[in-house]
Amino acid sequence: MAKQFAYDSLPIVQTKAGKLRGYQSEGTYIFKGIKYAKAERFQKPVDPDPWEGVIETASYGFVSPMLTQDNPKGEIIVPHRYWPQNEHCQNLNIWTQTLETEAHKPVLVWIHGGGFTMGSSIEQKAYNGENMSKYGDVVVVSVNHRLNILGYFDLSPYGEKYADSANAGQEDLIAALRWIKDNIAAFGGDPENVTIFGQSGGGMKVSGLMQMPAADGLFHKGIIMSGVAGDLMSYSTGDSQPIVQALLKQLGLTEDEVEKLETIPYYELAQAYNTVSPALAMQGLYVGCMPKPNAFYKGEGPAYGFRDHACKIPLIVGTVFGEFAMKPLPFNKEEISEADLKKALQERFHEHTDALTEEFAIAYPGKSLADLLQLDTIFRCPAKEFIKSFAEAGGRVYSYLFALEFPYQHKRTAWHCADIPYVFHNAEMVPVCNIPDVSDRLEEQIFSAVISFAKTGDPNHPGIPQWPETTADDEATMIFDEVCDLRHNFDEKLLQMYRDASPKIDLADLMAEMADDIQH
Amino acid sequence: MAKQFAYDSLPIVQTKAGKLRGYQSEGTYIFKGIKYAKAERFQKPVDPDPWEGVIETASYGFVSPMLTQDNPKGEIIVPHRYWPQNEHCQNLNIWTQTLETEAHKPVLVWIHGGGFTMGSSIEQKAYNGENMSKYGDVVVVSVNHRLNILGYFDLSPYGEKYADSANAGQEDLIAALRWIKDNIAAFGGDPENVTIFGQSGGGMKVSGLMQMPAADGLFHKGIIMSGVAGDLMSYSTGDSQPIVQALLKQLGLTEDEVEKLETIPYYELAQAYNTVSPALAMQGLYVGCMPKPNAFYKGEGPAYGFRDHACKIPLIVGTVFGEFAMKPLPFNKEEISEADLKKALQERFHEHTDALTEEFAIAYPGKSLADLLQLDTIFRCPAKEFIKSFAEAGGRVYSYLFALEFPYQHKRTAWHCADIPYVFHNAEMVPVCNIPDVSDRLEEQIFSAVISFAKTGDPNHPGIPQWPETTADDEATMIFDEVCDLRHNFDEKLLQMYRDASPKIDLADLMAEMADDIQH
Repeated sequence: MAKQFAYDSLPIVQTKAGKLRGYQSEGTYIFKGIKYAKAERFQKPVDPDPWEGVIETASYGFVSPMLTQDNPKGEIIVPHRYWPQNEHCQNLNIWTQTLETEAHKPVLVWIHGGGFTMGSSIEQKAYNGENMSKYGDVVVVSVNHRLNILGYFDLSPYGEKYADSANAGQEDLIAALRWIKDNIAAFGGDPENVTIFGQSGGGMKVSGLMQMPAADGLFHKGIIMSGVAGDLMSYSTGDSQPIVQALLKQLGLTEDEVEKLETIPYYELAQAYNTVSPALAMQGLYVGCMPKPNAFYKGEGPAYGFRDHACKIPLIVGTVFGEFAMKPLPFNKEEISEADLKKALQERFHEHTDALTEEFAIAYPGKSLADLLQLDTIFRCPAKEFIKSFAEAGGRVYSYLFALEFPYQHKRTAWHCADIPYVFHNAEMVPVCNIPDVSDRLEEQIFSAVISFAKTGDPNHPGIPQWPETTADDEATMIFDEVCDLRHNFDEKLLQMYRDASPKIDLADLMAEMADDIQH
Repeated sequence: MAKQFAYDSLPIVQTKAGKLRGYQSEGTYIFKGIKYAKAERFQKPVDPDPWEGVIETASYGFVSPMLTQDNPKGEIIVPHRYWPQNEHCQNLNIWTQTLETEAHKPVLVWIHGGGFTMGSSIEQKAYNGENMSKYGDVVVVSVNHRLNILGYFDLSPYGEKYADSANAGQEDLIAALRWIKDNIAAFGGDPENVTIFGQSGGGMKVSGLMQMPAADGLFHKGIIMSGVAGDLMSYSTGDSQPIVQALLKQLGLTEDEVEKLETIPYYELAQAYNTVSPALAMQGLYVGCMPKPNAFYKGEGPAYGFRDHACKIPLIVGTVFGEFAMKPLPFNKEEISEADLKKALQERFHEHTDALTEEFAIAYPGKSLADLLQLDTIFRCPAKEFIKSFAEAGGRVYSYLFALEFPYQHKRTAWHCADIPYVFHNAEMVPVCNIPDVSDRLEEQIFSAVISFAKTGDPNHPGIPQWPETTADDEATMIFDEVCDLRHNFDEKLLQMYRDASPKIDLADLMAEMADDIQH
């Protein structure tokens, strides 16, 4: 059936820098690729040039260049959308139901993941903001910004103009939030009610912005999905000169010629960086590609202490059951015999098996014991720590765990990114996320919680059990699953036992694995 | 509402090289990124390596690397889908309603456009084959193959292994068609009823395959949409050594080192080619990037004569009203005064204005005279010539012109690619293609004609006026518009007058413009 579409009859939108025109589809006004800032390489973004006349903003803008190319293999679980890359990628997209300047609709700003090195505002099909805007009656914004060495590479010893090149990607995000504050009313949004939400690296960007004074007042709530980095961020401290020197040498440049890094083609810069950085990273030295604490960025809350302003930002923080358990179980968990399952568990957990399985059955009643082999601790442990320390610092925080099983590879547990389609009300765009009698209801439960939170700072709504905020002693975790359930400190003991039964994870290995897995 | 999805319960499909597994969504079986061949750079494709076990084919495969990057600006009219690039891009995608080996459903193979240098099997959102398969009960295949210098660069003077490097991209397509012949029955398709269809460069690839003996018997019908190249193809003859020599020199290689072109990174090869090729192209010398007549390819039919086998392939050939008229009219044609319109027409057509407008009103009753300023001749004239010469050679050919106006920029005439969403039954994916009370019906009319043709070789169906084949003297053209209409030699006189009133078009300028415009 023909969809509703409008273009010529739509009002022109006046922004600070100039007039623009989007289009309307099925009632939603859509604007793509709006330039919110411009920047020289490694330097802070500044306001975009104003323009005369009306610009058509109906095409997505460039996304940040990456260091390597994806090899898409897991499209069935996380369908991607790639796009041409250019470092002049400071642009954003808007979906809204109204262009009334007095409408004051809640604004949700999506900050994409892919660590700090990959991804884009449209990298996953499920990032499309149309349904969220339509079903939630909110203004949805998604943002591109500089990544990897373009966004996170400390050149501050080499000149004042590089003062925050270590966090240039975050500076872009701040510029985007400032653009939103100045302009979003013209798109029906409320500049005084802005929720930033992100998953994986996107979640880390949310917590990072909480610790950047320049972002204060530009957003009011945050959602951190599978995105507490924990110890990973400790790699981003230390002297930045070794990597800069190695890079210059590789390119045949001297330290006096640092400015040439601003103009050489990105392909060559990236090639040189990819050549020299692994050896330094192995030594635990700073190699960039994630935010670095400095005068502009106060470091992550759990390690450096939450800033007073950060504690005033209500948060939702959570993870999914399986996260990086990307390899399917080597058996069909619905058919395996009890004896074989026990054998498989013992191979992994040895003498801890009995106690662990007993505790797992308490924490996750109804789940197959086989799922213990897929249980995530990489994200869940730092997320718990974050939630606890934020609550202790006086912050308001709601905890969740997304534990749905999927009709793929015999009830596979939720993978990293599996919850995103439900948050965006986009399950229909990801066939594997559609489960008869389950997914429609769960999508409504998750989506409505996000929208309620964006509206009022409280995720509660009639469709879910009462969801209290977490206190220092009581982690009240909403389990999003076939049946939603609120549990208290439910996996504290399980995770302790799991850690005791597990070899220490090497963070360098993990990072390499992440780079590989994130493509799935 | 939750969509139907299946994976674990699906049958494994046995192909010649090995077993594979796709997924099912809303009843359609979907397979993506199936490897149909492998090839060394510049060399003929060979069978892919066989494999053990079951491969998941649920992610699109790499697309061919391009010489330059798109700067997406016209997404509102032609929404794109970009994808990671790698020269090992011999892969195809399948949508089908059944996996019964005896089902013998008609097979439609989409060959993408973008000249011979750009594009991919999924470059446009509208290339998605799910709806075509579902609503037409047919097997749809789309194919990636090598492009630009990887697919069309003559190194034959430098060794037997490069014998058809000039047409390696076409050789890939033949390998894909051979794979289809050998394997498509396992996907419910009839290897003896294969229709190849393509638009722009994709249409040129269709006509090119008709003139390649190695493709005989691998396909049985063809559809050429806005894809008759005409004189453009004359640039692909002549000595190939000047460009090879220039390229080698730019790369610091001697003629003895041609083999090194096989292994240097594509980025460097492309950079060097982009540097040296424009000067040679300006002199009218061969620079590759389109098929070259040789022992494997007999040259385009109108110029070189249709092969006997080619004449046995029933065809549908047509164009759209506006094609490369990418710039909107500088006025609103619904509001402009008669006097101002006449002035605008006179600025373009001078003393020919009155006669031309009179003839235009006869050829296109009901259209605004302003549309004369957008009328395509670049594609229409060679297409008419092709149709006529194919009919004269005894071929069966159906002619069409797609003349719909769109609710964009005040009833803009149909642009290059505007008809694709209707052919694929994908108008819903391109908001601007949705016109109340018009587009649903027109989509059904066009789509059913394509499906009828794929089934029987005759596009007629009860929803359109009788559509006879064209004879040497009578071009019977189906006008696809708000109201479909069959006309005879309807624009013969108009085009003759138009040519008389127009400056000669410079093909080199046109090619440069094409490269730019194709991005819209």
